[in-house]
Amino acid sequence: MLKKQALLTDLYQLTMAQAYWSTGLASKQASFYMHFRENPFKGGYAVACGLAQVAELIDGFSFTAQDCKYLKSLQAGKGTVLLDPKFVDSLAEMQLELDIDAVPEGTVVFPYEPVIRVSGPILQCQIVETALLNHVNYQTLIATKAARVCQAAGDGAVAEFGLRRAQGPGGGVFASRAAIIGGCNSTSNVAAGREFSLPVSGTHAHSWVMAHHDELSAFRAFAEVMPDNCILLIDTYDVVSGVKNAITVAKEMEARGQRLAGVRIDSGDLAWLSSQARTLLDEAGLSYVRIIVSNDLDEYTIQSLRDQGAPIDAWGVGTRLVTAYDQPALGGVYKLSATRQGEHSIWEPHLKVSEQLRKATFPGVLAVRRYHDENNTIIGDMVYSEDAPPTKHIIVDPHDELRRKNLSGAQFSELLQPLARKGTIVWSEVSALEAQENTKRNLASLDASNKRFLNPHTYPVGLEEKLMACRDSLILRTRARRKA
Amino acid sequence: MLKKQALLTDLYQLTMAQAYWSTGLASKQASFYMHFRENPFKGGYAVACGLAQVAELIDGFSFTAQDCKYLKSLQAGKGTVLLDPKFVDSLAEMQLELDIDAVPEGTVVFPYEPVIRVSGPILQCQIVETALLNHVNYQTLIATKAARVCQAAGDGAVAEFGLRRAQGPGGGVFASRAAIIGGCNSTSNVAAGREFSLPVSGTHAHSWVMAHHDELSAFRAFAEVMPDNCILLIDTYDVVSGVKNAITVAKEMEARGQRLAGVRIDSGDLAWLSSQARTLLDEAGLSYVRIIVSNDLDEYTIQSLRDQGAPIDAWGVGTRLVTAYDQPALGGVYKLSATRQGEHSIWEPHLKVSEQLRKATFPGVLAVRRYHDENNTIIGDMVYSEDAPPTKHIIVDPHDELRRKNLSGAQFSELLQPLARKGTIVWSEVSALEAQENTKRNLASLDASNKRFLNPHTYPVGLEEKLMACRDSLILRTRARRKA
Repeated sequence: MLKKQALLTDLYQLTMAQAYWSTGLASKQASFYMHFRENPFKGGYAVACGLAQVAELIDGFSFTAQDCKYLKSLQAGKGTVLLDPKFVDSLAEMQLELDIDAVPEGTVVFPYEPVIRVSGPILQCQIVETALLNHVNYQTLIATKAARVCQAAGDGAVAEFGLRRAQGPGGGVFASRAAIIGGCNSTSNVAAGREFSLPVSGTHAHSWVMAHHDELSAFRAFAEVMPDNCILLIDTYDVVSGVKNAITVAKEMEARGQRLAGVRIDSGDLAWLSSQARTLLDEAGLSYVRIIVSNDLDEYTIQSLRDQGAPIDAWGVGTRLVTAYDQPALGGVYKLSATRQGEHSIWEPHLKVSEQLRKATFPGVLAVRRYHDENNTIIGDMVYSEDAPPTKHIIVDPHDELRRKNLSGAQFSELLQPLARKGTIVWSEVSALEAQENTKRNLASLDASNKRFLNPHTYPVGLEEKLMACRDSLILRTRARRKA
Repeated sequence: MLKKQALLTDLYQLTMAQAYWSTGLASKQASFYMHFRENPFKGGYAVACGLAQVAELIDGFSFTAQDCKYLKSLQAGKGTVLLDPKFVDSLAEMQLELDIDAVPEGTVVFPYEPVIRVSGPILQCQIVETALLNHVNYQTLIATKAARVCQAAGDGAVAEFGLRRAQGPGGGVFASRAAIIGGCNSTSNVAAGREFSLPVSGTHAHSWVMAHHDELSAFRAFAEVMPDNCILLIDTYDVVSGVKNAITVAKEMEARGQRLAGVRIDSGDLAWLSSQARTLLDEAGLSYVRIIVSNDLDEYTIQSLRDQGAPIDAWGVGTRLVTAYDQPALGGVYKLSATRQGEHSIWEPHLKVSEQLRKATFPGVLAVRRYHDENNTIIGDMVYSEDAPPTKHIIVDPHDELRRKNLSGAQFSELLQPLARKGTIVWSEVSALEAQENTKRNLASLDASNKRFLNPHTYPVGLEEKLMACRDSLILRTRARRKA
């Protein structure tokens, strides 16, 4: 789906690339990492997603003849070309040589730690930046939202059906994938279902009812044609008369040895209407008929409905999930953290420090260790530089040097896994449903206090001591030079 | 780009389609229309966009052999297939026969009026619904946001560069298209630039500066390689020292007969820093060097900076534009408004009415007349049914029957234009830049009071009198039947 999408990039990556090429810096080695500074939705975690699309982007990455023709046609103004044709030809011949390490999809991740690391020729690191950020920012956002929605829904199934309000067809397709990885049970999106082998679901719309003389004949016709897993939408005109018509049809189905799977309510006061519907269904001996609701749901409305004891069995979630309505972008950034002259030279750490210390980046070729206790609950993450591997199990809060945590004695594992070596994918592809299992395992390893919606506990992410010292000395040096 | 995307639909469109097919209703004629109920961003208008993608979707719409193979593989549970293989085969043979009418891209549109109307076999009307809504909802949202941002920027150029935070690659590509149609001068998105012939722009990132020993050498190298339209990013370490380095390079460029085009500031207090930069540049005799700013800008921050008199010449707008951050979805809906048995029968009007009158739809085969005064300012829109063409120039507020406006004597034109007839596209393709011109003309015809950000005046959209009477009688009949 993403092959031959080398142009999915910001123009400045190409103007910079030409500048690296012209000044002999194209093969200078660099290490970049992606991180974000705040959990989305004021939550306590994020669920990493979109890494499979990064692998797909890298695999077979190339500038086609058509791409190059287009690039050569760009003007810098005044009738001069923007890009040197020889430089564009060099892009056509370029083979990616990048080493990429990333967290597996479904891993819970936290602010300030590397989610993905890209090392290799600086020109190549930059050319993949925009598409990489696009995929990981968006899918991580949606997988996180889905995890929260599913957490609110508890044992109730969650169906994603946001395609009609998603941000473009790609937004829709990748939203559906990320929603499943975050925990949703199915999607309505058929294209995404086929592309990523996702479970799909759906029954009928209001228009089916409106296209018939009356609701009862519409329900009857639908149940006859689609008796398996039949769900009737009962709010086209009025929910109470709708549920009565559904009961009539359910009884007719019983007479044919069939069972009505459920009724769906898509408007109105869902707590009150679901109670009415449950009572009427139970009185008719139809306690097996499930109640599904929808209508601008998110984790907060679902939690509220469950807190009210609404007898709802399953949830349809659309716009607010696929657009991450209350925070429609994750602010993940991709920062240069080290350079070296050649593949066998020593890495030189770099950082960017502005007025705000919180926005300072970390220097080095970065990696992450995750510690867990004997119950497999995760208890802290250590960011370190591979040039100076940890010798102690102490992490330092990068924004409060006096805050330290000793993790000695705890088990740990490496968070970043090889995704590409010298441009070749070494990442084992996992299905979206396997990634969903990883999300569930990861969320189970996270303490409940980190999963609260309101004021969640901050999970400890700290720097290894030598990395902290390196960062501090680089900040002091940069600030001193600035004043000079 | 959208060919062979017949599966970009909600599964329920296909289960309903099978039900229409099974019950002999597949070729029943229907008329659907799309409208929205509230202007986005609490504004006074929306800019229609995404219609070209609807034309692209319809043109060559077909279920491929692979699509059908996938559809036949879907299970309804218990080992039974979801869709009848004969029904799936009928999809493979289906030729679209739809008549579609839509407003041209760049037209200003308002709540409750049809933006697009689709008539033809009901099965076909439904199968295209989801993708149609996806495109028009999203691109209308972004074109509207872009129009607002450009309105705030006045004569200052606006560059869109949100791809890295956009909702997936498609979100990015279609956002860039809609941003240009809404009024932006350029995009950073190279893929969108090629696909839709959009102007592209971009220079360098912080990483270019960080990859050099110091900022001055980085600026010098960039200006040597890219002297045309060179813009230097001056906030990697400190804006004041950054502007001083840019001045040094600008003077070196002058000695070579070149001119530095601009400096860009991407962080900090943009009002204060732009003033500092302007003063230093002017003192150095560089009044021609433009100041470009970026960093989470939207129409409100741009308006505030201009109100403060900040000496800013151009604006880079990303995340808040391409995700429509403060309202990331337009709630456009697609509703059945009439059916008939065959192509030569009389249309029977339909509506959906729930508890809230504001959510009631309009019945009939709908069209819109737009009235304008002698200054070409638009003064009111009339929604009517083609079955009962208007005989008077009076519009009635659908939510306040006592509110009427007499538009007699004013010129008018039809808003909906033919897009497809019997499935064949009859719409003349216009480029994104031509659509942008249409946006500008449309915004010029809109009174300033409708364009205010705060509490804009409501533009009058009303029903033709016979349509109003038809709607009222259908609502009364539906409500009476419900009680029965």
